[in-house]
Amino acid sequence: MENNNELKQLEEKELSSKLIYSGTLLNVYRDEIELPNGKTTGREYIKHNGAVCIAAMQEDGSVAVERQFRYPMHRIVTELPAGKLDTPDEIPLEAAKRELREETGIRASQWTYLGGMIPTCAYSTEIIHMYLAEGLEFGDRDLDEDEFLNVSFMPLKELVDKCMSGEIQDSKTQIATLKVARLKGIE
Amino acid sequence: MENNNELKQLEEKELSSKLIYSGTLLNVYRDEIELPNGKTTGREYIKHNGAVCIAAMQEDGSVAVERQFRYPMHRIVTELPAGKLDTPDEIPLEAAKRELREETGIRASQWTYLGGMIPTCAYSTEIIHMYLAEGLEFGDRDLDEDEFLNVSFMPLKELVDKCMSGEIQDSKTQIATLKVARLKGIE
Repeated sequence: MENNNELKQLEEKELSSKLIYSGTLLNVYRDEIELPNGKTTGREYIKHNGAVCIAAMQEDGSVAVERQFRYPMHRIVTELPAGKLDTPDEIPLEAAKRELREETGIRASQWTYLGGMIPTCAYSTEIIHMYLAEGLEFGDRDLDEDEFLNVSFMPLKELVDKCMSGEIQDSKTQIATLKVARLKGIE
Repeated sequence: MENNNELKQLEEKELSSKLIYSGTLLNVYRDEIELPNGKTTGREYIKHNGAVCIAAMQEDGSVAVERQFRYPMHRIVTELPAGKLDTPDEIPLEAAKRELREETGIRASQWTYLGGMIPTCAYSTEIIHMYLAEGLEFGDRDLDEDEFLNVSFMPLKELVDKCMSGEIQDSKTQIATLKVARLKGIE
């Protein structure tokens, strides 16, 4: 936990803030700040609404995974279902229910919060809220016409092994998987 | 693993690429791409050299952690030592050794690769390579004069509990901690 001495020693104070690039996905800011030693410098970062990620698990222990082409990586990435908040103040659980339904057609009766994760604390304000969803019912998915992703189920144990071996690299997927494995006592 | 059918179904093809913002930290690109349905659209992303993260563990099971003010979060964040590659083709293990020495003064005789993690596959090319470092020797750290961070040691079990409770939110820290906990059999 922070205390006042530590904050004084480490804090960077905002002097001014400027939107320097506003795109369809990314909003980049550059702020002038004061360092703890009194010098001034700049900090560049992305402002992001935040996001959600869902480990949807069936009674047999298999988990819904998606395969999606992720353009910055120039390859198909295996991930848990996830999506952005519509607005910065959207309730994350509501966003998680919507994203899971739209991307996979799944509704869940039990939701367990797995905590938040900051993907890139150096250059984005994004926090991803992670959930375990159980008690699943299956319906139709509802993708945007320009959204392309494949859904399948993978045993939790296989997902854990693929995180441990380095085959699954997506950060939110690794954290949610390893947390669920601890909660469910998967060796 | 990808197969040709899946790639055809999901692939987004680059048509052109443009650097739209070049800052001191962030380089933002906007590419025109072709979707699997033949439509064209844009993709914005950060080009990043990649990074490293180190869980440096003493024989008593305590791990080096840093406390650092992370401006985009406007608060002090607890993290494992980490840093960027100097160039895109720097050998990650060399960068890990350098960053650990500079930030904490620690040299390690045993290095175990924990795999890579993609923090934000939707909008950055960054991959963070994670390591477990053991056989520690302690010397002086070598921070930049404008770099401010506090180093201490935390028992691995406490680090795991703080990841599970949601108190520790940094993504690389959660993944490396939960992986080391599995490797070391921490309940």
